[in-house]
Amino acid sequence: MALTEAHAQNETLTSLNHRHLLGLATYSAAEIRLILDTARQFRDVLNRAIPRVPTLRGFTVVNLFFEPSTRTRISFELAEKRLSADVVNFTASGSSVSKGETLKDTAQNLEAMKIDMCVIRHKSPGAAQFLTQVVDAVVINAGDGAHEHPTQALLDMLTISDFFPSFEGLNVSIIGDITHSRVARSNIYGLTTLGANVTLCGPKTMMPVAIEEMAPPGKLRVTYRLEEALEGCDVAMALRIQLERQEAGLFPSLREYHDRFGIRMEHLEQNPDLIVMHPGPVNRGVELASEVVDHERAVILDQVTNGLAARMAVLYLLSGAPSVGQE
Amino acid sequence: MALTEAHAQNETLTSLNHRHLLGLATYSAAEIRLILDTARQFRDVLNRAIPRVPTLRGFTVVNLFFEPSTRTRISFELAEKRLSADVVNFTASGSSVSKGETLKDTAQNLEAMKIDMCVIRHKSPGAAQFLTQVVDAVVINAGDGAHEHPTQALLDMLTISDFFPSFEGLNVSIIGDITHSRVARSNIYGLTTLGANVTLCGPKTMMPVAIEEMAPPGKLRVTYRLEEALEGCDVAMALRIQLERQEAGLFPSLREYHDRFGIRMEHLEQNPDLIVMHPGPVNRGVELASEVVDHERAVILDQVTNGLAARMAVLYLLSGAPSVGQE
Amino acid sequence: MALTEAHAQNETLTSLNHRHLLGLATYSAAEIRLILDTARQFRDVLNRAIPRVPTLRGFTVVNLFFEPSTRTRISFELAEKRLSADVVNFTASGSSVSKGETLKDTAQNLEAMKIDMCVIRHKSPGAAQFLTQVVDAVVINAGDGAHEHPTQALLDMLTISDFFPSFEGLNVSIIGDITHSRVARSNIYGLTTLGANVTLCGPKTMMPVAIEEMAPPGKLRVTYRLEEALEGCDVAMALRIQLERQEAGLFPSLREYHDRFGIRMEHLEQNPDLIVMHPGPVNRGVELASEVVDHERAVILDQVTNGLAARMAVLYLLSGAPSVGQE
Repeated sequence: MALTEAHAQNETLTSLNHRHLLGLATYSAAEIRLILDTARQFRDVLNRAIPRVPTLRGFTVVNLFFEPSTRTRISFELAEKRLSADVVNFTASGSSVSKGETLKDTAQNLEAMKIDMCVIRHKSPGAAQFLTQVVDAVVINAGDGAHEHPTQALLDMLTISDFFPSFEGLNVSIIGDITHSRVARSNIYGLTTLGANVTLCGPKTMMPVAIEEMAPPGKLRVTYRLEEALEGCDVAMALRIQLERQEAGLFPSLREYHDRFGIRMEHLEQNPDLIVMHPGPVNRGVELASEVVDHERAVILDQVTNGLAARMAVLYLLSGAPSVGQE
Repeated sequence: MALTEAHAQNETLTSLNHRHLLGLATYSAAEIRLILDTARQFRDVLNRAIPRVPTLRGFTVVNLFFEPSTRTRISFELAEKRLSADVVNFTASGSSVSKGETLKDTAQNLEAMKIDMCVIRHKSPGAAQFLTQVVDAVVINAGDGAHEHPTQALLDMLTISDFFPSFEGLNVSIIGDITHSRVARSNIYGLTTLGANVTLCGPKTMMPVAIEEMAPPGKLRVTYRLEEALEGCDVAMALRIQLERQEAGLFPSLREYHDRFGIRMEHLEQNPDLIVMHPGPVNRGVELASEVVDHERAVILDQVTNGLAARMAVLYLLSGAPSVGQE
Repeated sequence: MALTEAHAQNETLTSLNHRHLLGLATYSAAEIRLILDTARQFRDVLNRAIPRVPTLRGFTVVNLFFEPSTRTRISFELAEKRLSADVVNFTASGSSVSKGETLKDTAQNLEAMKIDMCVIRHKSPGAAQFLTQVVDAVVINAGDGAHEHPTQALLDMLTISDFFPSFEGLNVSIIGDITHSRVARSNIYGLTTLGANVTLCGPKTMMPVAIEEMAPPGKLRVTYRLEEALEGCDVAMALRIQLERQEAGLFPSLREYHDRFGIRMEHLEQNPDLIVMHPGPVNRGVELASEVVDHERAVILDQVTNGLAARMAVLYLLSGAPSVGQE
């Protein structure tokens, strides 16, 4: 079934029903498709000689990063600049501002400075939601603890949609530390909303109890065996292992992790249509064999490019700006 | 007496008599009024759909922050961007650049890069003054030790002027650690220059000797009792307590500080016209009871909004730009 | 011989033969002259009321600073902004990203975000070269270990060209810690390519073996005596001493260093046409006597101003932008 057919079957939106992007849990299929379609338009902008549109001219966006981040921050900052927004960066060490009270004060101060949009990354689940209660600005969640990281899932889905005509019935396996992964949660919500079947695979120590209840019955299954996860799989999405989890005893060694859950060349050979994704940065030889990272069916750098376009789409759609503003 | 009458009585300026803003000690009433009037114009700009004017297009402003600061730096940066200036941020840990020699070298280098304006925060009193001796750029003091923080006082006065028709005879009480407060000093100069009566109130350990000599006779008085400070008071301006002062033995406990100098609901009830100010961030339950912070007569977030407008006014007036540059 | 004559004798270029600027080792005289001529045009731009041209509008430049740097980063950032480029800053503590693997991943991610140009400073010699192998973006070396710092040498040569009609036969002495100096290496390449004679002078502990082989026979000589270096010298270029080298035993004391290699007033008096340069920041009383730093024949601040113009020229010439874009 082609993507256009899927559209015909479903409601088509011209604007989002949400004021904020806190997560994909509450976003409808039509909303997600609107974001992906808009992102494709911005991808065209990015391929022009001058990849800049005046869409957000006069808007002020604050990037409020309470957790260290390089890629996500730079991706948002570039997306904002290519939309001609005014950008202010705020980076804080987690310790001094991690209390809810201080987040409130910081946020209200920014609000009083007439900020239009806030992009927030914070180690506490719910921080983005909390922010919407204390400021009038539009809030975009750039990752809150292990809760959600919706723009990552949107860029992942944009990437998948370049390879497959429809999400309906698509088999996506998410492999790794599911417990600590906001990327997994946002993808579970987004992918199952669009009709994909999701398989979660990882060590038992990294698999939350009753995780299947996150999706409608039959859309989400769990396995502890990689071979089972990859059988009939269209997309294998490996998650980054935080090396400090090893010290916490959640897995015995990097080598054993790779042997049991690492995607290797043999998996690509067994399944000639499989594409491999990773939110980066990859621990080569752990989540993915080094040759897999460099293989043409690993689309990790496509994900990065799509991150810019997906974030531009979210910023534009939530801004209330009148048009994409093609110059 | 209305503000317009006050104008009629006094000289009206169309430009400042100073090249720099090092402090309010030497600024005349006419100069301060010009800044406040200009800030009101910029406040209108900030309320527009596109809150940006081309006033400082082609000007380069460097924010030279030798002391950590979030709000003041972001406020200046936003003000500069809304005036369309090119902005470069320089943030340094105090230790490596705190010597006058190095400040001189840093400043001369920036100068050689053809900077138009420097905003400087530094822990040494006189750092902004020193900077004017070694560079040609216009210098704006964003706080130098316990000396002055003039843009804070200007935003405070702009906020007060929204509530009271004139500064003449207005009673303003500044409460807290006067000794270490550049905010207090700048407000004492500015408020008494405009004709207000200022009362200082705080623990004896935090009150400088002979502080009354900062203002003309009769304009500045000292009390160590909060009740006395709040009697007949129009504006109560609480200062932030640095918690490390407690370790230094300057006050016995946060609870005792709050009991003796904290503004509580009973004070708002006793004085129904009193407005409460604080330069932020507030230690809730210390300088102000938490309910006071959230009360409608606490104008702390108005102060933040006015900070943007006041800083835009100072940047514009000192830049020599030909006009406010309404687009 | 006038500079224009030198031109007549040689090939004149309208564009560079290189895609990147990794160092001056491979740049021809004609290429260096093209950069210097272009930098003079940008110097005119910098002296205008609005020192900004639309040359790089729509280009995105990332400043990738893996080593701390204030002046060079600010100089590049200002150059980029005055060319109207979109600028993203990335600053990393050396430790976490110093491995080639991570530099590769970081670089490829930036690449996937459709960056046009990368300015990189890194402690590893060859880091800029490595970057060109993993990204498509144009790479400008802002200092890689002790290897090269080509824009510093270009600004030095631009400064020299204001005082002398030709580089042919000009005598330039570079004094200090040659071993650890990327500034020295880039100047040796650039100056000898343009026809100057270079003398290196410093303690034996700071002089690389067989350094003379860096330049054509007869163009580069070594001496350990300052008097010999300054005899018949047109330009004395002092290098900054890293004070931690003293602990490593490379020189006995700052005072002895100054006595043996510091440029003092007597040297200026003995040689009335000598100009004195320093890449900054100067250790006053060590590399240069304090009165020498402030003398009119010390052109240290001219170097800083020329740094902006030289970097604008390099950014423009490597960008492939169609014209300087005078507004």
